[in-house]
Amino acid sequence: MASPIDFYFDFSSPYGYVASRLVEGLAQRTGREIQWRPMLIGAVMKITGQPALIDIPMKGTYARRDFERTARYYKVPFRLPDPFPIGTVPAVRAFYWTHNRDPAQARSLAKALLSAFFVDGREIGSAEGVVAVARATGLDGGALAAALGDPALKERTRQAVEAAVALGVFGSPYFIVDGEPFWGVDRMPMLEEWVRRGGW
Amino acid sequence: MASPIDFYFDFSSPYGYVASRLVEGLAQRTGREIQWRPMLIGAVMKITGQPALIDIPMKGTYARRDFERTARYYKVPFRLPDPFPIGTVPAVRAFYWTHNRDPAQARSLAKALLSAFFVDGREIGSAEGVVAVARATGLDGGALAAALGDPALKERTRQAVEAAVALGVFGSPYFIVDGEPFWGVDRMPMLEEWVRRGGW
Repeated sequence: MASPIDFYFDFSSPYGYVASRLVEGLAQRTGREIQWRPMLIGAVMKITGQPALIDIPMKGTYARRDFERTARYYKVPFRLPDPFPIGTVPAVRAFYWTHNRDPAQARSLAKALLSAFFVDGREIGSAEGVVAVARATGLDGGALAAALGDPALKERTRQAVEAAVALGVFGSPYFIVDGEPFWGVDRMPMLEEWVRRGGW
Repeated sequence: MASPIDFYFDFSSPYGYVASRLVEGLAQRTGREIQWRPMLIGAVMKITGQPALIDIPMKGTYARRDFERTARYYKVPFRLPDPFPIGTVPAVRAFYWTHNRDPAQARSLAKALLSAFFVDGREIGSAEGVVAVARATGLDGGALAAALGDPALKERTRQAVEAAVALGVFGSPYFIVDGEPFWGVDRMPMLEEWVRRGGW
Protein backbone atom coordinates (compact mmCIF):
# COMPACT_ATOMS: atom_id res chain seq x y z
CA MET A 1 0.00 0.00 0.00
CA ALA A 2 1.26 3.48 -0.86
CA SER A 3 2.72 5.38 2.08
CA PRO A 4 0.70 8.21 3.61
CA ILE A 5 1.33 11.92 3.24
CA ASP A 6 2.66 13.36 6.49
CA PHE A 7 0.98 16.70 7.14
CA TYR A 8 2.84 18.81 9.68
CA PHE A 9 1.25 22.02 10.95
CA ASP A 10 1.19 24.41 13.87
CA PHE A 11 -2.20 25.19 15.41
CA SER A 12 -1.36 28.89 15.27
CA SER A 13 -0.41 28.90 11.57
CA PRO A 14 -2.88 30.48 9.12
CA TYR A 15 -1.32 28.65 6.17
CA GLY A 16 -1.42 25.41 8.16
CA TYR A 17 -5.11 26.04 8.79
CA VAL A 18 -5.82 26.67 5.10
CA ALA A 19 -3.91 23.49 4.23
CA SER A 20 -6.00 21.56 6.76
CA ARG A 21 -9.06 22.47 4.69
CA LEU A 22 -7.41 21.16 1.52
CA VAL A 23 -5.81 17.89 2.61
CA GLU A 24 -8.92 15.78 2.28
CA GLY A 25 -9.26 16.71 -1.38
CA LEU A 26 -5.58 15.93 -1.78
CA ALA A 27 -6.10 12.52 -0.16
CA GLN A 28 -8.99 11.70 -2.49
CA ARG A 29 -7.18 12.75 -5.64
CA THR A 30 -3.90 11.01 -4.79
CA GLY A 31 -5.32 7.94 -3.07
CA ARG A 32 -2.95 8.58 -0.17
CA GLU A 33 -3.90 8.81 3.47
CA ILE A 34 -3.04 11.96 5.38
CA GLN A 35 -1.22 11.65 8.69
CA TRP A 36 -1.98 14.78 10.71
CA ARG A 37 1.12 15.72 12.69
CA PRO A 38 0.75 18.89 14.75
CA MET A 39 4.06 20.35 15.85
CA LEU A 40 5.43 23.49 17.47
CA ILE A 41 7.03 26.12 15.29
CA GLY A 42 8.38 27.64 18.50
CA ALA A 43 10.76 24.68 18.75
CA VAL A 44 12.02 25.46 15.25
CA MET A 45 12.43 29.16 15.99
CA LYS A 46 14.86 28.26 18.77
CA ILE A 47 17.03 26.47 16.21
CA THR A 48 16.71 28.83 13.25
CA GLY A 49 16.82 32.04 15.27
CA GLN A 50 13.92 33.29 13.16
CA PRO A 51 11.21 35.48 14.67
CA ALA A 52 7.52 34.79 14.09
CA LEU A 53 6.54 35.45 10.48
CA ILE A 54 4.37 38.46 11.21
CA ASP A 55 7.12 40.03 13.32
CA ILE A 56 9.58 40.14 10.40
CA PRO A 57 9.66 43.66 8.90
CA MET A 58 8.16 43.89 5.39
CA LYS A 59 7.47 40.15 5.22
CA GLY A 60 5.04 40.39 8.12
CA THR A 61 3.07 43.16 6.40
CA TYR A 62 2.85 41.06 3.25
CA ALA A 63 1.85 37.98 5.25
CA ARG A 64 -1.12 39.68 6.92
CA ARG A 65 -2.50 40.61 3.52
CA ASP A 66 -1.65 37.25 2.04
CA PHE A 67 -3.35 35.22 4.78
CA GLU A 68 -6.69 36.79 3.87
CA ARG A 69 -6.12 36.61 0.13
CA THR A 70 -5.05 32.96 0.28
CA ALA A 71 -8.08 32.02 2.36
CA ARG A 72 -10.41 33.81 -0.08
CA TYR A 73 -8.65 32.11 -3.01
CA TYR A 74 -9.40 28.69 -1.57
CA LYS A 75 -12.84 29.78 -0.33
CA VAL A 76 -11.92 28.97 3.24
CA PRO A 77 -13.48 31.08 6.03
CA PHE A 78 -10.78 32.98 7.88
CA ARG A 79 -10.32 35.83 10.31
CA LEU A 80 -6.91 36.64 11.77
CA PRO A 81 -7.34 35.96 15.51
CA ASP A 82 -6.33 38.37 18.23
CA PRO A 83 -4.07 37.61 20.03
CA PHE A 84 -1.97 36.08 17.27
CA PRO A 85 0.29 34.12 17.13
CA ILE A 86 -0.22 32.04 20.25
CA GLY A 87 1.52 29.16 21.99
CA THR A 88 -0.14 25.84 21.27
CA VAL A 89 1.45 23.33 23.62
CA PRO A 90 -1.90 22.36 25.26
CA ALA A 91 -3.50 21.92 21.82
CA VAL A 92 -0.72 19.61 20.63
CA ARG A 93 -0.84 17.61 23.85
CA ALA A 94 -4.60 17.26 23.56
CA PHE A 95 -4.15 16.01 20.00
CA TYR A 96 -1.73 13.26 21.02
CA TRP A 97 -3.81 12.29 24.06
CA THR A 98 -6.78 11.80 21.77
CA HIS A 99 -4.66 10.13 19.10
CA ASN A 100 -3.57 7.47 21.59
CA ARG A 101 -7.23 6.51 21.89
CA ASP A 102 -8.59 7.15 18.41
CA PRO A 103 -6.69 8.74 15.50
CA ALA A 104 -9.92 9.71 13.70
CA GLN A 105 -11.15 11.56 16.76
CA ALA A 106 -7.79 13.32 17.06
CA ARG A 107 -8.25 14.58 13.51
CA SER A 108 -11.72 15.85 14.40
CA LEU A 109 -10.28 17.60 17.43
CA ALA A 110 -7.57 19.24 15.30
CA LYS A 111 -10.18 20.53 12.86
CA ALA A 112 -12.34 21.81 15.69
CA LEU A 113 -9.39 23.63 17.29
CA LEU A 114 -8.34 25.23 14.00
CA SER A 115 -11.90 26.36 13.27
CA ALA A 116 -12.36 27.66 16.79
CA PHE A 117 -9.25 29.80 16.41
CA PHE A 118 -9.33 30.91 12.77
CA VAL A 119 -13.06 31.08 12.12
CA ASP A 120 -14.68 31.83 15.47
CA GLY A 121 -11.80 33.73 17.07
CA ARG A 122 -11.97 31.58 20.17
CA GLU A 123 -9.10 31.18 22.61
CA ILE A 124 -7.22 27.89 22.15
CA GLY A 125 -3.91 28.81 23.76
CA SER A 126 -4.75 27.67 27.29
CA ALA A 127 -5.59 24.23 28.65
CA GLU A 128 -9.07 25.57 29.50
CA GLY A 129 -9.66 26.80 25.96
CA VAL A 130 -8.54 23.50 24.47
CA VAL A 131 -10.67 21.46 26.86
CA ALA A 132 -13.74 23.55 26.02
CA VAL A 133 -13.30 22.87 22.31
CA ALA A 134 -12.58 19.17 22.96
CA ARG A 135 -15.73 18.86 25.03
CA ALA A 136 -17.80 20.25 22.19
CA THR A 137 -16.47 17.49 19.90
CA GLY A 138 -17.68 14.85 22.36
CA LEU A 139 -14.42 14.15 24.17
CA ASP A 140 -14.28 13.63 27.92
CA GLY A 141 -13.22 17.11 29.05
CA GLY A 142 -12.53 16.08 32.63
CA ALA A 143 -10.24 13.23 31.60
CA LEU A 144 -8.44 15.46 29.08
CA ALA A 145 -7.98 18.27 31.61
CA ALA A 146 -6.49 15.80 34.07
CA ALA A 147 -4.23 14.28 31.37
CA LEU A 148 -2.76 17.56 30.09
CA GLY A 149 -0.32 17.73 33.00
CA ASP A 150 0.65 14.06 32.77
CA PRO A 151 4.43 13.62 32.35
CA ALA A 152 3.95 10.73 29.91
CA LEU A 153 1.79 12.89 27.65
CA LYS A 154 4.29 15.75 27.88
CA GLU A 155 7.01 13.32 26.86
CA ARG A 156 4.95 11.91 23.99
CA THR A 157 4.39 15.45 22.70
CA ARG A 158 8.02 16.43 23.12
CA GLN A 159 9.09 13.36 21.15
CA ALA A 160 6.65 14.08 18.32
CA VAL A 161 7.94 17.63 17.98
CA GLU A 162 11.56 16.51 18.17
CA ALA A 163 10.96 13.87 15.52
CA ALA A 164 9.50 16.51 13.21
CA VAL A 165 12.43 18.84 13.77
CA ALA A 166 14.86 15.96 13.17
CA LEU A 167 13.18 15.41 9.79
CA GLY A 168 13.77 19.06 8.91
CA VAL A 169 10.23 20.34 9.40
CA PHE A 170 10.75 24.09 9.78
CA GLY A 171 7.43 25.58 8.67
CA SER A 172 3.69 25.10 8.57
CA PRO A 173 2.25 23.47 6.60
CA TYR A 174 5.04 21.05 5.75
CA PHE A 175 4.46 17.78 3.97
CA ILE A 176 6.62 14.71 3.53
CA VAL A 177 5.60 12.05 1.05
CA ASP A 178 7.83 9.16 -0.05
CA GLY A 179 10.70 11.00 1.68
CA GLU A 180 10.16 14.19 -0.32
CA PRO A 181 9.51 17.43 1.62
CA PHE A 182 7.16 20.22 0.51
CA TRP A 183 6.80 23.44 2.46
CA GLY A 184 3.83 25.76 2.17
CA VAL A 185 0.21 25.67 1.13
CA ASP A 186 1.30 27.05 -2.25
CA ARG A 187 3.35 23.93 -2.84
CA MET A 188 0.41 21.56 -2.54
CA PRO A 189 -0.14 21.48 -6.33
CA MET A 190 3.53 20.53 -6.81
CA LEU A 191 3.23 17.85 -4.12
CA GLU A 192 0.19 16.43 -5.89
CA GLU A 193 2.03 16.40 -9.19
CA TRP A 194 4.98 14.69 -7.49
CA VAL A 195 2.76 11.89 -6.21
CA ARG A 196 0.98 11.56 -9.55
CA ARG A 197 4.20 11.35 -11.56
CA GLY A 198 6.32 9.62 -8.91
CA GLY A 199 8.72 12.54 -8.87
CA TRP A 200 10.76 14.15 -11.64
CA MET B 1 -3.87 50.19 -21.69
CA ALA B 2 -3.54 47.71 -18.83
CA SER B 3 -0.67 48.41 -16.47
CA PRO B 4 2.43 46.24 -16.64
CA ILE B 5 3.50 43.55 -14.20
CA ASP B 6 6.48 44.73 -12.19
CA PHE B 7 8.96 41.88 -11.86
CA TYR B 8 11.48 42.41 -9.06
CA PHE B 9 14.38 40.02 -8.71
CA ASP B 10 17.91 39.72 -7.39
CA PHE B 11 20.58 38.52 -9.81
CA SER B 12 21.78 36.03 -7.19
CA SER B 13 18.34 34.51 -6.53
CA PRO B 14 17.66 31.02 -7.94
CA TYR B 15 13.90 31.51 -7.68
CA GLY B 16 14.25 34.90 -9.36
CA TYR B 17 16.16 33.22 -12.16
CA VAL B 18 13.50 30.53 -12.61
CA ALA B 19 10.83 33.25 -12.65
CA SER B 20 12.80 35.11 -15.33
CA ARG B 21 12.33 32.07 -17.56
CA LEU B 22 8.58 32.10 -16.97
CA VAL B 23 7.64 35.77 -17.23
CA GLU B 24 7.40 35.85 -21.00
CA GLY B 25 4.79 33.11 -20.98
CA LEU B 26 3.00 35.06 -18.26
CA ALA B 27 3.09 38.20 -20.39
CA GLN B 28 1.64 36.39 -23.38
CA ARG B 29 -1.16 34.74 -21.44
CA THR B 30 -2.17 37.86 -19.51
CA GLY B 31 -1.56 40.44 -22.22
CA ARG B 32 0.47 42.47 -19.74
CA GLU B 33 3.96 43.78 -20.27
CA ILE B 34 6.66 42.79 -17.81
CA GLN B 35 8.79 45.50 -16.27
CA TRP B 36 12.09 43.91 -15.24
CA ARG B 37 13.25 45.54 -12.00
CA PRO B 38 16.46 44.08 -10.57
CA MET B 39 17.02 44.97 -6.95
CA LEU B 40 19.32 44.06 -4.09
CA ILE B 41 18.09 41.65 -1.43
CA GLY B 42 21.08 42.76 0.64
CA ALA B 43 19.31 46.09 1.17
CA VAL B 44 16.27 44.22 2.47
CA MET B 45 18.35 42.04 4.78
CA LYS B 46 19.61 45.16 6.53
CA ILE B 47 16.01 46.08 7.32
CA THR B 48 14.58 42.66 8.13
CA GLY B 49 17.61 41.37 9.97
CA GLN B 50 17.22 38.11 8.04
CA PRO B 51 20.27 36.12 6.93
CA ALA B 52 20.58 34.77 3.40
CA LEU B 53 18.07 32.00 2.75
CA ILE B 54 20.64 29.23 2.47
CA ASP B 55 22.25 30.31 5.74
CA ILE B 56 19.08 29.76 7.75
CA PRO B 57 19.28 26.42 9.57
CA MET B 58 16.83 23.78 8.26
CA LYS B 59 15.30 26.17 5.73
CA GLY B 60 18.61 26.47 3.90
CA THR B 61 18.90 22.70 3.58
CA TYR B 62 15.39 22.54 2.15
CA ALA B 63 16.10 25.45 -0.21
CA ARG B 64 19.14 23.79 -1.78
CA ARG B 65 17.06 20.75 -2.62
CA ASP B 66 14.09 22.83 -3.71
CA PHE B 67 16.11 25.05 -6.10
CA GLU B 68 16.98 21.99 -8.18
CA ARG B 69 13.56 20.43 -7.95
CA THR B 70 11.81 23.67 -8.92
CA ALA B 71 14.10 24.17 -11.91
CA ARG B 72 13.47 20.59 -13.08
CA TYR B 73 9.72 21.07 -12.58
CA TYR B 74 9.74 24.06 -14.94
CA LYS B 75 12.29 22.43 -17.27
CA VAL B 76 14.73 25.27 -16.73
CA PRO B 77 18.47 24.50 -16.85
CA PHE B 78 20.05 25.19 -13.46
CA ARG B 79 23.18 24.51 -11.48
CA LEU B 80 23.75 26.11 -8.09
CA PRO B 81 26.79 28.36 -8.64
CA ASP B 82 29.82 28.43 -6.41
CA PRO B 83 30.37 30.87 -4.77
CA PHE B 84 26.74 31.47 -3.92
CA PRO B 85 25.09 33.80 -3.00
CA ILE B 86 27.03 36.76 -4.36
CA GLY B 87 26.76 40.55 -4.29
CA THR B 88 25.24 41.94 -7.46
CA VAL B 89 25.71 45.70 -7.29
CA PRO B 90 27.70 45.87 -10.58
CA ALA B 91 25.06 43.73 -12.34
CA VAL B 92 22.22 46.00 -11.21
CA ARG B 93 24.16 49.11 -12.19
CA ALA B 94 24.89 47.62 -15.62
CA PHE B 95 21.19 46.90 -16.03
CA TYR B 96 20.18 50.49 -15.32
CA TRP B 97 22.98 51.91 -17.47
CA THR B 98 21.70 49.82 -20.36
CA HIS B 99 18.09 50.58 -19.54
CA ASN B 100 18.76 54.32 -19.88
CA ARG B 101 19.70 53.65 -23.50
CA ASP B 102 17.42 50.78 -24.48
CA PRO B 103 15.03 48.90 -22.17
CA ALA B 104 14.86 45.87 -24.50
CA GLN B 105 18.64 45.57 -24.45
CA ALA B 106 18.63 45.83 -20.66
CA ARG B 107 16.27 42.85 -20.57
CA SER B 108 18.62 40.91 -22.84
CA LEU B 109 21.51 41.78 -20.57
CA ALA B 110 19.56 40.61 -17.50
CA LYS B 111 18.81 37.28 -19.16
CA ALA B 112 22.44 36.89 -20.22
CA LEU B 113 23.68 37.61 -16.69
CA LEU B 114 21.24 35.15 -15.12
CA SER B 115 22.17 32.42 -17.61
CA ALA B 116 25.87 33.09 -17.17
CA PHE B 117 25.51 32.62 -13.42
CA PHE B 118 22.89 29.88 -13.08
CA VAL B 119 23.55 27.83 -16.22
CA ASP B 120 27.21 28.33 -17.05
CA GLY B 121 28.51 28.97 -13.53
CA ARG B 122 30.32 32.10 -14.64
CA GLU B 123 31.36 34.87 -12.29
CA ILE B 124 28.99 37.87 -12.40
CA GLY B 125 29.78 39.44 -9.04
CA SER B 126 32.55 41.74 -10.20
CA ALA B 127 32.51 44.65 -12.64
CA GLU B 128 34.84 42.63 -14.88
CA GLY B 129 32.53 39.63 -14.90
CA VAL B 130 29.51 41.79 -15.70
CA VAL B 131 31.32 43.64 -18.48
CA ALA B 132 32.42 40.35 -20.06
CA VAL B 133 28.82 39.13 -20.19
CA ALA B 134 27.60 42.52 -21.46
CA ARG B 135 30.18 42.49 -24.23
CA ALA B 136 28.98 39.10 -25.40
CA THR B 137 25.46 40.53 -25.79
CA GLY B 138 26.82 43.24 -28.07
CA LEU B 139 27.06 46.10 -25.59
CA ASP B 140 30.00 48.49 -25.55
CA GLY B 141 32.11 46.93 -22.81
CA GLY B 142 34.53 49.84 -22.58
CA ALA B 143 31.76 52.39 -22.13
CA LEU B 144 30.02 50.20 -19.57
CA ALA B 145 33.23 49.60 -17.60
CA ALA B 146 33.83 53.35 -17.49
CA ALA B 147 30.21 54.04 -16.48
CA LEU B 148 30.06 51.57 -13.58
CA GLY B 149 31.91 53.97 -11.29
CA ASP B 150 29.83 56.98 -12.36
CA PRO B 151 28.16 58.68 -9.38
CA ALA B 152 24.99 59.38 -11.40
CA LEU B 153 24.63 55.68 -12.22
CA LYS B 154 25.27 54.73 -8.61
CA GLU B 155 22.57 57.17 -7.57
CA ARG B 156 20.13 55.84 -10.19
CA THR B 157 20.70 52.31 -8.89
CA ARG B 158 20.37 53.35 -5.27
CA GLN B 159 17.06 55.05 -6.03
CA ALA B 160 15.71 52.01 -7.88
CA VAL B 161 16.53 49.75 -4.94
CA GLU B 162 15.12 52.22 -2.42
CA ALA B 163 11.92 52.54 -4.41
CA ALA B 164 11.51 48.76 -4.40
CA VAL B 165 12.10 48.57 -0.67
CA ALA B 166 9.62 51.42 -0.11
CA LEU B 167 7.01 49.36 -1.98
CA GLY B 168 7.63 46.46 0.37
CA VAL B 169 9.65 44.25 -1.97
CA PHE B 170 11.41 41.89 0.44
CA GLY B 171 12.09 38.81 -1.67
CA SER B 172 12.93 37.52 -5.12
CA PRO B 173 10.99 37.09 -7.28
CA TYR B 174 8.40 39.62 -6.19
CA PHE B 175 5.67 40.90 -8.46
CA ILE B 176 3.34 43.86 -8.23
CA VAL B 177 0.39 44.12 -10.58
CA ASP B 178 -2.43 46.64 -10.22
CA GLY B 179 -1.04 47.40 -6.75
CA GLU B 180 -1.24 43.76 -5.64
CA PRO B 181 1.99 42.08 -4.44
CA PHE B 182 2.94 38.44 -5.04
CA TRP B 183 6.07 36.88 -3.60
CA GLY B 184 7.71 33.77 -4.95
CA VAL B 185 7.87 31.76 -8.14
CA ASP B 186 5.25 29.45 -6.65
CA ARG B 187 2.79 32.33 -6.53
CA MET B 188 2.92 33.01 -10.26
CA PRO B 189 -0.17 30.86 -10.93
CA MET B 190 -2.08 32.88 -8.31
CA LEU B 191 -0.83 36.13 -9.84
CA GLU B 192 -2.03 35.00 -13.25
CA GLU B 193 -5.42 34.09 -11.85
CA TRP B 194 -5.58 37.49 -10.12
CA VAL B 195 -5.00 39.29 -13.42
CA ARG B 196 -7.46 37.05 -15.25
CA ARG B 197 -10.23 37.55 -12.70
CA GLY B 198 -9.34 41.08 -11.66
CA GLY B 199 -8.79 39.96 -8.08
CA TRP B 200 -11.11 38.17 -5.65
